[in-house]
Amino acid sequence: MNGKMKAIVKHHRDKGARLEMVDIPQINENEVLIKVKATSICGTDVHIYAWDEWSASRVNPPYVFGHEFAGEVVEIGEDVTNVKIGDSVSAETHIVCGECPQCLTGNAHICRNTKIIGVDIDGCFAEYVALPAKNLWKNDAEMPMSVGSVQEPMGNAVHTVLAGDVAGKTVSIIGCGPIGLMAVGVAKAAGASQVIAYDLNEYRLELAKEMGATTIVNSKEQDPVQVAMELTDGNGVEVVCEMSGHPVAIDQGFKMLTNGGRMSILSLPVKPVQVDITNDIVFKGITVQGITGRKMYETWRQVAGLLESGQVDVKKMITHEFSLEDFEKGFDLMLEGKCGKVVLKP
Amino acid sequence: MNGKMKAIVKHHRDKGARLEMVDIPQINENEVLIKVKATSICGTDVHIYAWDEWSASRVNPPYVFGHEFAGEVVEIGEDVTNVKIGDSVSAETHIVCGECPQCLTGNAHICRNTKIIGVDIDGCFAEYVALPAKNLWKNDAEMPMSVGSVQEPMGNAVHTVLAGDVAGKTVSIIGCGPIGLMAVGVAKAAGASQVIAYDLNEYRLELAKEMGATTIVNSKEQDPVQVAMELTDGNGVEVVCEMSGHPVAIDQGFKMLTNGGRMSILSLPVKPVQVDITNDIVFKGITVQGITGRKMYETWRQVAGLLESGQVDVKKMITHEFSLEDFEKGFDLMLEGKCGKVVLKP
Amino acid sequence: MNGKMKAIVKHHRDKGARLEMVDIPQINENEVLIKVKATSICGTDVHIYAWDEWSASRVNPPYVFGHEFAGEVVEIGEDVTNVKIGDSVSAETHIVCGECPQCLTGNAHICRNTKIIGVDIDGCFAEYVALPAKNLWKNDAEMPMSVGSVQEPMGNAVHTVLAGDVAGKTVSIIGCGPIGLMAVGVAKAAGASQVIAYDLNEYRLELAKEMGATTIVNSKEQDPVQVAMELTDGNGVEVVCEMSGHPVAIDQGFKMLTNGGRMSILSLPVKPVQVDITNDIVFKGITVQGITGRKMYETWRQVAGLLESGQVDVKKMITHEFSLEDFEKGFDLMLEGKCGKVVLKP
Amino acid sequence: MNGKMKAIVKHHRDKGARLEMVDIPQINENEVLIKVKATSICGTDVHIYAWDEWSASRVNPPYVFGHEFAGEVVEIGEDVTNVKIGDSVSAETHIVCGECPQCLTGNAHICRNTKIIGVDIDGCFAEYVALPAKNLWKNDAEMPMSVGSVQEPMGNAVHTVLAGDVAGKTVSIIGCGPIGLMAVGVAKAAGASQVIAYDLNEYRLELAKEMGATTIVNSKEQDPVQVAMELTDGNGVEVVCEMSGHPVAIDQGFKMLTNGGRMSILSLPVKPVQVDITNDIVFKGITVQGITGRKMYETWRQVAGLLESGQVDVKKMITHEFSLEDFEKGFDLMLEGKCGKVVLKP
Repeated sequence: MNGKMKAIVKHHRDKGARLEMVDIPQINENEVLIKVKATSICGTDVHIYAWDEWSASRVNPPYVFGHEFAGEVVEIGEDVTNVKIGDSVSAETHIVCGECPQCLTGNAHICRNTKIIGVDIDGCFAEYVALPAKNLWKNDAEMPMSVGSVQEPMGNAVHTVLAGDVAGKTVSIIGCGPIGLMAVGVAKAAGASQVIAYDLNEYRLELAKEMGATTIVNSKEQDPVQVAMELTDGNGVEVVCEMSGHPVAIDQGFKMLTNGGRMSILSLPVKPVQVDITNDIVFKGITVQGITGRKMYETWRQVAGLLESGQVDVKKMITHEFSLEDFEKGFDLMLEGKCGKVVLKP
Repeated sequence: MNGKMKAIVKHHRDKGARLEMVDIPQINENEVLIKVKATSICGTDVHIYAWDEWSASRVNPPYVFGHEFAGEVVEIGEDVTNVKIGDSVSAETHIVCGECPQCLTGNAHICRNTKIIGVDIDGCFAEYVALPAKNLWKNDAEMPMSVGSVQEPMGNAVHTVLAGDVAGKTVSIIGCGPIGLMAVGVAKAAGASQVIAYDLNEYRLELAKEMGATTIVNSKEQDPVQVAMELTDGNGVEVVCEMSGHPVAIDQGFKMLTNGGRMSILSLPVKPVQVDITNDIVFKGITVQGITGRKMYETWRQVAGLLESGQVDVKKMITHEFSLEDFEKGFDLMLEGKCGKVVLKP
Repeated sequence: MNGKMKAIVKHHRDKGARLEMVDIPQINENEVLIKVKATSICGTDVHIYAWDEWSASRVNPPYVFGHEFAGEVVEIGEDVTNVKIGDSVSAETHIVCGECPQCLTGNAHICRNTKIIGVDIDGCFAEYVALPAKNLWKNDAEMPMSVGSVQEPMGNAVHTVLAGDVAGKTVSIIGCGPIGLMAVGVAKAAGASQVIAYDLNEYRLELAKEMGATTIVNSKEQDPVQVAMELTDGNGVEVVCEMSGHPVAIDQGFKMLTNGGRMSILSLPVKPVQVDITNDIVFKGITVQGITGRKMYETWRQVAGLLESGQVDVKKMITHEFSLEDFEKGFDLMLEGKCGKVVLKP
Repeated sequence: MNGKMKAIVKHHRDKGARLEMVDIPQINENEVLIKVKATSICGTDVHIYAWDEWSASRVNPPYVFGHEFAGEVVEIGEDVTNVKIGDSVSAETHIVCGECPQCLTGNAHICRNTKIIGVDIDGCFAEYVALPAKNLWKNDAEMPMSVGSVQEPMGNAVHTVLAGDVAGKTVSIIGCGPIGLMAVGVAKAAGASQVIAYDLNEYRLELAKEMGATTIVNSKEQDPVQVAMELTDGNGVEVVCEMSGHPVAIDQGFKMLTNGGRMSILSLPVKPVQVDITNDIVFKGITVQGITGRKMYETWRQVAGLLESGQVDVKKMITHEFSLEDFEKGFDLMLEGKCGKVVLKP
């Protein structure tokens, strides 16, 4: 397809972004062009927008950013067989090499040569996006586009929470940003007997309650470890999902975990963290898991299963929708933390 | 404690049982005497009551049968430390040797020298029951006694359903007797995207719906395999929990399972069954699990977690309560299949 | 590459095969042409050669059969990036769809649309073979071609034996055809405390001993279950790998398994088999696994690791090598069972 | 049994220990008296002997220390059924409560109320030791006493190495003290394709080679990460067993691990360690396991299986044997690091 389209362009190496008219991307024989119907803002996008140290070292403006979306297939390359024009799709945002040992052993989510949509190549904050066919995930025709859009981050939540047993167990979710909020919903849907949510932000703690948290803890006001101990007869919780990235919160996570527990870390602390390996890991016999991306495509199937059955209702945490033009309102809300998930509609 | 108590005694080697006054059992230093507050009827009890081939070969009348209960500790042996007088308790019904390789490797539920309460030794269809302290499970003080009583069979359901992943997956429960009904509730609570329940008995299918089945199938009226295929876009379900024991239903279970699926069998078919190993097991790469008893005591913790949090509401399937004296009404209902779980109150 | 090549052609719908001159296959942009240096005879090839019921229902003569090989890349399609001319390669023989739920969740070995090299498309009993690039496995340059050739069936053995824990455990291998013999070597290399090998064929039992069996049992002469019980203090073995396909042997496998044990079945019994589900699966709490193909490509990595380190020495069970022209000698030996693995050199 | 016996007594709160005559311990109805035939020196014993900060905070002199041993049962309490007089035994050294959630779910090795033989109660550096019957492990009558004695620390090695898959994988063992040396042997026996051993001590690196290391690395002389990368085509190793406790070595362990790898930590760093969670755990998607004690009694069965089959030959790393009276020679060697395992014979 030829022509121009609206896109949010990270145009220079500094704070901010700009709505511009750019060329509609061209596809090759293995790619697909998608008309974006809904796209949501990730914490990563906020980092790029705000231009922090990480983004300065990783991205190359000018380019179109954004990676969470749902849309409709409008053009397919000649070798594409897995989707057809008119299909409703979202996409796995990791473009992987397919040849490294990780890719060859069912662990493509930790491919050593990963490129990320909207980070390393043009993304989906636009009217159209072009992607490799093998990255597409077909959505149920009846799934609302805004719900379809948040499947990618919900995949992070699912990958984290379901990285071990949950049913009948006590689970702490530390950090209630959008992924944390979805993690609360997933833990509840998967049968956790308690889902304890921690944050400093009351707005998000209230959303956590909506998503199914059995207890919410404002870590400024209550000692998180003490609360966890009281709620578990002094044993500690069986699972901690760490989504805050704060050294203090990570330490609290270790301390509230019972012997033999599981600590699944999705967050990205900005610096090395002091860990008391002897007392918090070895003597307690715990397991620490680093979680990144989504299992391709086992996580996507789980996400679809939990959404289509209504076990997790993400609409409760999609708090704002704006037109693409109004993207700055969305970024401002994200920077203030006064939102769940923000969706943009091109 | 000395004195007499009411008990349902399997008094002779034929159909039926009798309410009698018998001695209150005496305890040794490692045992506990419990006042039974609620006791529920298991399919095994019905076999003993009806006196079939299996019971004729296994049990030795006269003795008190029954094994599912909740009650209050009224006397403890001098070496007992894990419970105290006044505690509300239920019990693991497998008394294990503690010395075989299975017991020594965390698999006491498949101990090679198991004795079963109410089968091999006196049981709990009585005002009092005496048991080894190590078999007791302390209940939350607020748990209703009838709910406490059905934890043992709910443990079978939990052990079966949670023997593998469930969240976001499609699950078939074949056979909706009391354990099947609880399995429906557990699968739903654990995040199954679909829970398809199969039986020939409409009364029980309706209860399955109450417990959370997303589809109910009367296998007399619909082809179970065809329904499963239609509900899964022709792929088949990912998990089958087999609780019917019928050769035809077992075969249907294999046929409705997708490649790589899990078949967890709790039922006890009365004869060897023809299995198409090549097409139904090997080429499909499935896993078949034999499930017996409850993991000691991991399953009990999961059961307690699911009940205390309200994730599974077993009250919906406890359809009848009678006094101990009216036990025959309960057995008649069980024989007719016109009930969920039947509880007796001594 | 143009021209003619020698190939063993299954030329008509009856017993036998014929060496013919056929066209060297042409490759497309995603395929690779390999000069075959060694190719080995699988039991499947023997079925096709002997023309049994299964082959009559599955294969379409005339075509080139054979699927196990090692060779050198001589031509690559323009989109191929994972191998280059001169590489030494073998190949995964399952050509999978990449789009079914199994392929999308890391279980391509049980793809529901699998095509098999040498069964559904032309194979490698020839001077050259053309294959999709993504099916190739790069061999260490120093691996002998005959060893490279048997990696595919060794993958079956590895997939079966390593489908659960082995180190420090007692393992029975039932059936000592070539894959069974390699399974003996794998179990030993993986730290099994005992590897008990069963067959009716003394020649193969002797090879099993060579491969590391700690006990060999001629099932005609000794009761396999009794031997297993004696060797395990009456407990039974912890793992059974079933590679015979005989109903009697399968039943013996179930009977010799200890409670909680693992039965991994790679064999393909020609008819449904009577299984005592109640006593052999449920009460014993065992796990039965259907095993097919090789995990892509986790199994291949394990195979390479075990071969390159010398942990498994397959040369001991490659008993015969012939030129391609002498293929009938190889098939005759396979039919008689007087061989380990037979390799043909084009 | 009444009378006096020789014992190594930690007699005062300072460096050293003393051979004294003390009362032979008395047993209760659940205990067993064992005549010690061989007892070996653990790193923990060296800490107690040398009187460091940890021992000053934990142990209460005067008492008999030591916990690794093999011996013969000479007296049993009246309730003991699992061993009889004349049996050759060793013992699990963790005395656990049996009532905490960990004990009740098959994780007694991380019991929250553990007491350790020779640390919290009198130990086995003596002619006799009294222990709870349930802590005993029966040895094969033909196992040499010195081999029986080192099963407990070998259990640590087995628990660490076999906490995940090993067959066909690349494994680094960091730290070649006695447990590290046994870990090398276990990894090799379990089919690791490479076992790379790291230490600063040439004597122990030579022993690592004896035990089966495929490469030994003196971390003073070579960059451990670089060596690991070179040996794995730049991918990194799949398993790291950390047994050194040094912050630098731990960091190197993280760096040499491939994406998706496993880091199993048995060591006890004396202070919190800086961990780059983002780059070394999350982005790499690795799993970190804290390992303590031995699984009761699954690990013991694995140890016995590996020893009785000859898969691991611990005699190679039992470098010194002394009489109990000469214990100071043993401790001196341990302090200098010029030994493998040191055994004392009472």
